[in-house]
Amino acid sequence: MIEIQLDSRFKTVGGGVCASRGFTANGICCGLAKKATSDGEADMQNVQDKKVKNDLALIFAEKPCAAAAVFTTNTVKAAPVRVSREHVANGIARAVIINSVNANACVPEGEEKARKMCAITAEKLGISPAEVLVASTGVIGQPFDITPIENGISALADGLSRDGNAAALNAIMTTDAAEKELAVEFTLGGKTCRIGGMLKGSGMINPNMATTLTFITTDAAIAPEILKRVLKEVVADTLNCVSVDGDTSTNDMVCVLASGLAENAEITLENIDKDDDYNMFRDALYAVMMNLARMMARDGEGATKLVQCVCQGARTANDARLIAKSVISSSLLKAAMFGKDANWGRIICAAGYSGADFEPDEFGVAIASEAGKINVCKDGRGLDFDETLAKKVLEPEEINIIITAGSGLRSAVAWGCDLTYDYVKINGDYRS
Amino acid sequence: MIEIQLDSRFKTVGGGVCASRGFTANGICCGLAKKATSDGEADMQNVQDKKVKNDLALIFAEKPCAAAAVFTTNTVKAAPVRVSREHVANGIARAVIINSVNANACVPEGEEKARKMCAITAEKLGISPAEVLVASTGVIGQPFDITPIENGISALADGLSRDGNAAALNAIMTTDAAEKELAVEFTLGGKTCRIGGMLKGSGMINPNMATTLTFITTDAAIAPEILKRVLKEVVADTLNCVSVDGDTSTNDMVCVLASGLAENAEITLENIDKDDDYNMFRDALYAVMMNLARMMARDGEGATKLVQCVCQGARTANDARLIAKSVISSSLLKAAMFGKDANWGRIICAAGYSGADFEPDEFGVAIASEAGKINVCKDGRGLDFDETLAKKVLEPEEINIIITAGSGLRSAVAWGCDLTYDYVKINGDYRS
Repeated sequence: MIEIQLDSRFKTVGGGVCASRGFTANGICCGLAKKATSDGEADMQNVQDKKVKNDLALIFAEKPCAAAAVFTTNTVKAAPVRVSREHVANGIARAVIINSVNANACVPEGEEKARKMCAITAEKLGISPAEVLVASTGVIGQPFDITPIENGISALADGLSRDGNAAALNAIMTTDAAEKELAVEFTLGGKTCRIGGMLKGSGMINPNMATTLTFITTDAAIAPEILKRVLKEVVADTLNCVSVDGDTSTNDMVCVLASGLAENAEITLENIDKDDDYNMFRDALYAVMMNLARMMARDGEGATKLVQCVCQGARTANDARLIAKSVISSSLLKAAMFGKDANWGRIICAAGYSGADFEPDEFGVAIASEAGKINVCKDGRGLDFDETLAKKVLEPEEINIIITAGSGLRSAVAWGCDLTYDYVKINGDYRS
Repeated sequence: MIEIQLDSRFKTVGGGVCASRGFTANGICCGLAKKATSDGEADMQNVQDKKVKNDLALIFAEKPCAAAAVFTTNTVKAAPVRVSREHVANGIARAVIINSVNANACVPEGEEKARKMCAITAEKLGISPAEVLVASTGVIGQPFDITPIENGISALADGLSRDGNAAALNAIMTTDAAEKELAVEFTLGGKTCRIGGMLKGSGMINPNMATTLTFITTDAAIAPEILKRVLKEVVADTLNCVSVDGDTSTNDMVCVLASGLAENAEITLENIDKDDDYNMFRDALYAVMMNLARMMARDGEGATKLVQCVCQGARTANDARLIAKSVISSSLLKAAMFGKDANWGRIICAAGYSGADFEPDEFGVAIASEAGKINVCKDGRGLDFDETLAKKVLEPEEINIIITAGSGLRSAVAWGCDLTYDYVKINGDYRS
C-alpha cells in the first residue's frame, strides 16, 4: 500500500463519507448484474446472496446541504451526468444515488431512467427529486432494466447508517482492486471539521471505460458558490492530474455535499479574503482528493507502480501541470517504468510535446524512491549515472520523477502508473 | 502485408526515392553503432562487414531542387532539425544526409556536429553546405563521435547510384520490422512525373522515441512556395493522422525535393488556380504519403494489425480528423482490437473526448474488414450484432472502423495499430 500524504494540520479519521457529521450511507446488491426475469422482477435470489458485490449505493444528509459537482468534459455524457448537472445547479442537494454494472450511457430512455432513480429515492426519503444527485458506472451502450433498483430502494434507504460507508464503497466499485476512501479532521475557526470521500476508478468491466466517480462529504459550513469554486480549483490539481490511459469517460463525476453541522462561521463570498478559512478548507479538500488520486493511479489497470511526477521551476502553474501530466501519460515512459529503465530521453521528449513553454537547455531530471535518488539529466544534457543504482531506485512501488523545467517559481504534481502486460490483458483479452 | 491503396490515376513503380529523375542515393555502415577506437578512428572491420545494418544514407540531386520540409512540433528539437530548418528556409536543396543509431538530441555540441555533417557532405559533392539537409534518428541524450561519418562520407558519395534507394532505406531504419518505401507515376499536363519516398518510424532502439523520418523526391517542376504549401496540406492528412503511442519525437522530419526534370509546366503561385496540376500533384503526394503512413501504422511497435478509422458525416474536416485520430489513439480501443473485441463503447467514448463538435444522438459505428462488416451503433445507441461474426471481422490484419459523426459533409481518415503485449515488452523490457 502507498502511504497517505498529509501535513500536520490534518489527521486521518475513519468513516469515509460518513465521517462528516450529518451523513449516513448504505450499499446493497439489488441484482443489476443478473438479467431481470421475464416478468420484469429482479433475481431476488441473487440480491440476497451476500457473496455478490453490491451494486447500489446511497448517501443521505439529515438536512439540505450546500452542493457542488464537476462532470466529465466528454461530449458524450451519460444520462445521470446530464440529470445531476441539472439538479446541482441551484447549489443544494441532500442525497446521492449511485449504481454500478451499467453506465446508463448511450441507451434508450437513459434520461428517463436517471430521473426515475432520483424520483424513487426522493419519495422513499421524503425529499424532493431535485435534491437527489445520480451517478452510474459500468457498461456503455447496453440497455438495462431499472426494476432491480426500484425494488431495492426501500431496503437500501432503510439500511442507511453512520457506518454504511464501506457498503456504499463496495457498491460503486467495478473492477477496482483496492478500496479507495479517506477522511480527515481539521479545525476551522476553532471548530473541528471533517471531509470524507470515496472514489472508484481505473477498473473496468466488460465493454466500457475508465470511469471515475468521487463522492465527498463535509460538515464544514460553506456557501454553495464557494464550494463550487474550491471544488473546481482542487479538481484541477488532483483528479485532472491523474492518467491511467488517457481515456476520459462518459460518466466521470465528482460531487461534494456540505452539511454545515460543524458550526464554523460559514465561508462565504463576503469573508473569503478576510481570514484563512477558505485556504484551510481548500487544503483539506486537496488533502483528501490528492490522496484519493494517488490511490487511483496506484490502482490503475494492471499497474505495479504509482508514478508521481513533480515539475518544479516552471514559469507558470499551467506549464508545470502540462509537463507533469504529459510525462505520466507517455506510454513509452510508462512502459519504461514497468521495465525499471531510467529512460530519461522519454521524459524530456514528453515534456517537449506537452505544449508547455520552457527552455530545453535548462531542463533537469532526477528519479527517486525510498531506495535512493539518481540525477539523470541537467541543463538538457544527460548525466552519467550508476545503472545498478538506477534499477534499485526503480524497484519500489512508488516512483518519483522530479523535473526542473527552468528557473521559474511554479510547480505541479501529476500521478500515473506503469504500463504492463496486465493492462493489455485486462483490456484486450476480456472476452476471449 | 497490407495492400497499397491507389486510384487509377497512379501506378506503382520501383526505385523508391530514386524513381524520380535526377536523384541518386546510397547507404553504408560507417560504424556508428560500434564505439570509435581510442584514436578516434571508426571500427572499419565493422564497416566492411556486410551483415551489419547500414547507418548512414545520402540522397543527391543532379541539380538544385525546390525543397520544403515539415519538422517536429516538440519544443525539444534535435540539432539536425534546427540546422535543416535553417537550410531549407530559402526553398532550395540538393542533398540529404541521414544517420541512424544516434538522434543527436540533448547532447553537447549537437549543432556543431549537425553542421559538420552538412559541411563534409557538401565538400565531397562540390555543393554549398546550405544546400544540404541533415536528419538523425536513434538514442536521445547520448554523446557521440562523428568521426565514423567523416571517414565514411567519401565511400558513401562515391557509391551514389540510381538504384541506391534500398541501401539508403536500410540505413535510416532502426528497429522498423518492415521496409517502407513507395514510388508512383502520374501525368501532369501530358508529362510523365514521379514521386518516390521512404519512411522510417515506429521502431525504437535503446532509450529513445518513436521517430518518424520521411524523405520524398519528385521530378515534377513546382515552385518552392507551392511545394511547401502542398507538403503541409498532405502531412496534415497523412503523417499527422497516424499514432502508434501518441509520443511525438524530438527528431521528426519530412522533406521533399523536386528536381523539375519531368519538364511539366512549373506549378507556381500564378497558375495554381488555373489548371488541375496542383490538385494532381497534391493527390499524388497524398497517395505516396498515405500509403507510407499506413505501412508505418501496421509496423507500429508490437502491432499485429493496422487499424484504419474513417470518420464521415462531420461538419468540418477538423472535427472529422479529431474524431478519427482520437479513436485510433485510444489505448482502450487499441487493446480491444488486439483482443478482437467489438467494443464500440470505447469508440463513442474516444470521439466524445476528442474535442470535436458532434451530436451524440447522430453517432454511428460500423466495423469492417475483408472478412465482413458489422453495424454496432446507430443514432448513439447500440445495435444487436452477431458476436461470432464480430470476432471473424476482427481477425484480419487490416481493420476498418467507419464512423458516422452526423449528417455533415466532411470526412477524414486516421491510422493506428493495436496495443499488444509486445509493445510493453519492446518498450519496457529492453534492457532487462
